Amino acid sequence: MSIHDFLAPPSVSCQRAGPNDRIVMSSRVRLARNLKKLPFPAWAKKPDRLRVLEAIQPAVESLPQLAPHFAVAMDDLAALDKQVLVERHLISREHAAKGAGSGLVVNQEESLCVMINEEDHLRMQAIRPGLQIKACWQSIDAVDSALESKLDFAFTPELGYLTACPTNLGTGIRVSAMLHLPGLVLAEEITRIINAANKLNFAVRGLYGEGTEALGNVFQVSNQMTLGESEAQIIERIGKALSQIIEEEENSRALLLEKKPNTVFNHIGRAYGILANAHTISSKETMNLLSLMRLGVDLGMFPSVDRSLTDELFLLTQPAHLQRQHTEKLGAEERDTLRSDMLRERLRTVPRPQPPK
Amino acid sequence: MSIHDFLAPPSVSCQRAGPNDRIVMSSRVRLARNLKKLPFPAWAKKPDRLRVLEAIQPAVESLPQLAPHFAVAMDDLAALDKQVLVERHLISREHAAKGAGSGLVVNQEESLCVMINEEDHLRMQAIRPGLQIKACWQSIDAVDSALESKLDFAFTPELGYLTACPTNLGTGIRVSAMLHLPGLVLAEEITRIINAANKLNFAVRGLYGEGTEALGNVFQVSNQMTLGESEAQIIERIGKALSQIIEEEENSRALLLEKKPNTVFNHIGRAYGILANAHTISSKETMNLLSLMRLGVDLGMFPSVDRSLTDELFLLTQPAHLQRQHTEKLGAEERDTLRSDMLRERLRTVPRPQPPK
Repeated sequence: MSIHDFLAPPSVSCQRAGPNDRIVMSSRVRLARNLKKLPFPAWAKKPDRLRVLEAIQPAVESLPQLAPHFAVAMDDLAALDKQVLVERHLISREHAAKGAGSGLVVNQEESLCVMINEEDHLRMQAIRPGLQIKACWQSIDAVDSALESKLDFAFTPELGYLTACPTNLGTGIRVSAMLHLPGLVLAEEITRIINAANKLNFAVRGLYGEGTEALGNVFQVSNQMTLGESEAQIIERIGKALSQIIEEEENSRALLLEKKPNTVFNHIGRAYGILANAHTISSKETMNLLSLMRLGVDLGMFPSVDRSLTDELFLLTQPAHLQRQHTEKLGAEERDTLRSDMLRERLRTVPRPQPPK
Repeated sequence: MSIHDFLAPPSVSCQRAGPNDRIVMSSRVRLARNLKKLPFPAWAKKPDRLRVLEAIQPAVESLPQLAPHFAVAMDDLAALDKQVLVERHLISREHAAKGAGSGLVVNQEESLCVMINEEDHLRMQAIRPGLQIKACWQSIDAVDSALESKLDFAFTPELGYLTACPTNLGTGIRVSAMLHLPGLVLAEEITRIINAANKLNFAVRGLYGEGTEALGNVFQVSNQMTLGESEAQIIERIGKALSQIIEEEENSRALLLEKKPNTVFNHIGRAYGILANAHTISSKETMNLLSLMRLGVDLGMFPSVDRSLTDELFLLTQPAHLQRQHTEKLGAEERDTLRSDMLRERLRTVPRPQPPK
């Protein structure tokens, strides 16, 4: 069975709902762990990497929390399949580049995903739709505890969990949320928010994490410190920050609608008009326009459209997902054409947006 | 009666058809004449200007060719009405700026229009839809002959008709056609065509004549020499040049459809998508997008739409025409909003473009 037969298609996975999912596309808690007395992946030789994989993979696979699950060595995944997993935010771009000794275990509802021999021996993450960082923490904490009884993690009482990169030392925790913030972008308030988050020691990044652009007005907010605070304190602190950003986004939207309704309708109308009528469109332009259409759905301008449609199209129009729908190898230009064909077809029955009543 | 009650509304006037009107929006022949022993308008004092008006206007009004006609002193026209006449290409921007002593006589079907005290004492023009420069010439020649029996034109056997500007000396004729050339623009062949036309001593200008931009891919081609060739030779020579440009435009369209159909559909689709969904749009953007939609109509991508719709919208979305539809004085921002409101409303029932079969 391929991983695509195992995972739900985007039409299904994008219907998973969660609290505040108007603005919070997903929440995630990731823990970094390493096995004692074995070199970190970056400077491990292949035999050591394989030993790590052989120790960790069965332990992870035995966990009832992940059932039913899919496990695969990165070596055995085609480049396209890896790219699809990156686009679904199940694995990092770095992990997609890994080969021998690296592996992946993911459960069917994509709520738990474990990378073996990424930057650390073990990176386990809990992912949920909407704002659910506490639930993510509880679920990944349970996985961590269960694994700790089977594996010998590198840990010192002074430093906590040892990690390949000192930025992860201590708790090894990274808590993050993927936020859709078109209101703050349109109101030109986003820089103020990013600066404020940075001052509170939170990182704000683009759609695919570190060093990536905020395409489609999607921003990833995460903690930067893993040392000196307990996991509970980190969750508490980022939870507050996220709630504040959500409120700021809601305020921006309300203020825009009150003060500059036409600017909002104009952006959304044009975005829809282009998506529904273009005959060639890049992935980047698509994401930015779908973001505006998603905002239009939130504002009630597309009464017949569910938010899951824009989210599904957001995923289906990404390069690897698009390639997956075609047998022949596509060049960038062909992808831009087929992407627009798909968008026109899917939006054919969607009536033009109307200002909300 | 106001001039607007006299002239047909754009919904009617834009339905006037002519040969080659896919590409040739209109043809025009203009003659410049001056009365003997009276100073040219630019350096005439008001009494002389009035004397010219009083001599010419009754002579023009008496012509059966212009019946039924509307005559008005520029002084008596509101600024907005003058601007409307400029947008309809009945008077020049320069004439719209004129006051005491300047006048206008236009017939109801807008095929004959006489400006009094523009740059010359008399500028009479015949205008027809499509490629009809010979017919324009015949009709304005008849007007000229009729007037010559009533008025004493400044003429010398060596120089021909004397004019305020030496570029009009001799025949005083300017033959021009308004061409819609989106194919040559999209194919990036337009510069080559303009250069070739210039080499043949034809001027290529924008939508509103000298020094104006080629908005909406509309180019005005006209003769530059009025001396040394007879009127018939000028008509013959520009007629050949226009036929060649028409052929080049048709070739460009065919070649684009054959080699880059997607690029064409993409431009047209996006143009329609924006026109039908924007909530604010400038006059300039509107003209450029309507030009692409007009091309789409020509290519059969809008089976339910007649070309007269795009031409009517082209006119109705211009600033003065737009202002005319509203009682309160509009600022630029309001015009952009009301323009988009009108476009959305008018395109509400126009289905999305489809590639031609």
